[in-house]
Amino acid sequence: MKVANYHDSEPIKEVEGVLKREVITADDGAPNFCMRFFEVDTGSSTASHSHPYEHEIFVLNGKGVIAGEQGSTPIGKGSVVFIAPEEPHCIVNTGNEHLEFICLIPLQKKK
Amino acid sequence: MKVANYHDSEPIKEVEGVLKREVITADDGAPNFCMRFFEVDTGSSTASHSHPYEHEIFVLNGKGVIAGEQGSTPIGKGSVVFIAPEEPHCIVNTGNEHLEFICLIPLQKKK
Repeated sequence: MKVANYHDSEPIKEVEGVLKREVITADDGAPNFCMRFFEVDTGSSTASHSHPYEHEIFVLNGKGVIAGEQGSTPIGKGSVVFIAPEEPHCIVNTGNEHLEFICLIPLQKKK
Repeated sequence: MKVANYHDSEPIKEVEGVLKREVITADDGAPNFCMRFFEVDTGSSTASHSHPYEHEIFVLNGKGVIAGEQGSTPIGKGSVVFIAPEEPHCIVNTGNEHLEFICLIPLQKKK
């Protein structure tokens, strides 16, 4: 069993204004999927992209939008997002504080 | 893409004092793993058990302990927990407010 705080994982700059922490990985013994913690600065955005694996997201703090092929949808604390494989998407912080969320992906398909 | 709030999922009584919401499931198209939201009342506990699949947990609110073979470890907002397959565990709310966390498990092995 691993019990830690997300702060214990080193922040990695994903793109400008976006930090990623890999909080549960294969190194912890995870056999199927891994958990990452993201922090997006006000006005910043994750990369607009698609990939052959899904995202499962829970928003912890802040306000923003998730943009996809059907336009932009507001998200905030308590939002749950499922992004299917190959769906284009990006997450934009439109609020006045950090937008924080966790995002899980299957293992061996990390980006 | 599914964008929702965890409140949109119906709460299910897991055991006395513990509510579960299945917020991302195979019904949403999730191919590999699913996300559940748990709410544990003050003084209540999840079932003490083990099973052949892992848990990946992020604590959203409240205070408690996670009990396993190595004793009890405090958890609170921002805690990250990885429980390997077959590890005995339970989560106890030792605080004065709801203990809320999300817990992900691989698909087709739901409990």
